[in-house]
Amino acid sequence: MGPQPLIYPMPVILVGANVDDKPNFMAVAGCGIANAEPPMVSVAIRPERYTHRGIKQNSTFSVNVPSTDLVKETDYCGIESGSKANKVEACNFKVFYGKLGNAPLIEECPINLECKVMHTLNLDTHSLFIGRVEETHISKGCLTNGKPDVKKFKAFVYTTDLDYHYQALGEVVARAFSIGKELKVRK
Amino acid sequence: MGPQPLIYPMPVILVGANVDDKPNFMAVAGCGIANAEPPMVSVAIRPERYTHRGIKQNSTFSVNVPSTDLVKETDYCGIESGSKANKVEACNFKVFYGKLGNAPLIEECPINLECKVMHTLNLDTHSLFIGRVEETHISKGCLTNGKPDVKKFKAFVYTTDLDYHYQALGEVVARAFSIGKELKVRK
Repeated sequence: MGPQPLIYPMPVILVGANVDDKPNFMAVAGCGIANAEPPMVSVAIRPERYTHRGIKQNSTFSVNVPSTDLVKETDYCGIESGSKANKVEACNFKVFYGKLGNAPLIEECPINLECKVMHTLNLDTHSLFIGRVEETHISKGCLTNGKPDVKKFKAFVYTTDLDYHYQALGEVVARAFSIGKELKVRK
Repeated sequence: MGPQPLIYPMPVILVGANVDDKPNFMAVAGCGIANAEPPMVSVAIRPERYTHRGIKQNSTFSVNVPSTDLVKETDYCGIESGSKANKVEACNFKVFYGKLGNAPLIEECPINLECKVMHTLNLDTHSLFIGRVEETHISKGCLTNGKPDVKKFKAFVYTTDLDYHYQALGEVVARAFSIGKELKVRK
């Protein structure tokens, strides 16, 4: 097929940054977990994007995990540029700030991470920002017994088949760190 | 909540490397897309892992996207170490090699990427390898009209609620690069 970056399925997050002191958000599928302790995440952003400018200005960004209730807003934040529109207004987002003070967070998103840029890799079309998670916010309604409960998040993924879709999660297939034990006897 | 690397939901991939010239695979949730052109992916791997040694030996690795048919094998590759067991044998994987010659690929996985290490970031608990995708292999049964069709992949994600689970995909929520256009009128 030739080289293609096909990792399936991809999460979609809203990356936030203050650009010229105003909050802006963009949808990013090129993201991932980079380190466990301290927790770090990676986000890939084109240098020409408006959000890129804000991350460079403050060396901070936020990761906001949307629920299916926000699929329209998420898509909009991916196809519109903050240089042309006030996306916070168009989406009616309630923005708040946490520990870092300049990484804007979306109240409507069930999970918000405040990140401080630790490394920047200037790749060809994208900059890969590695951010250390400084604080995590989870909506109260998404906790069960004080722990994050993915059943309540209504998370979705970005998938491609003949078209590009946002897809909800389906049934639980198996327990992790558990079902694989059956194969241990074979060795 | 304190700092936590909560990006939901996370893909799970099998990262392959030849260790001392023998193929080995491990399950990795800390992965992502890092660059578009040329396509690059990132994988986060602890230095003490057996696979890490193989990536350092060859400066290559593979990304194998499993289907729900391989959920048991995937979990096993996450909880067992290649230093203690022959995982290829335990999983009955058919291994093949492609363009790079030393990045082992799993025939049973619908998608295989061959990657060449371009950058290595030594973070605290993990090394973040940025690999350039040199070749992509997709099982014929997963194509529709010559294009990858995610409906045929039977992809799954790794999620956490009160426990750790592998979860299949559910219904399509919306079309990407499309539904967000409705918000463009608001600005």
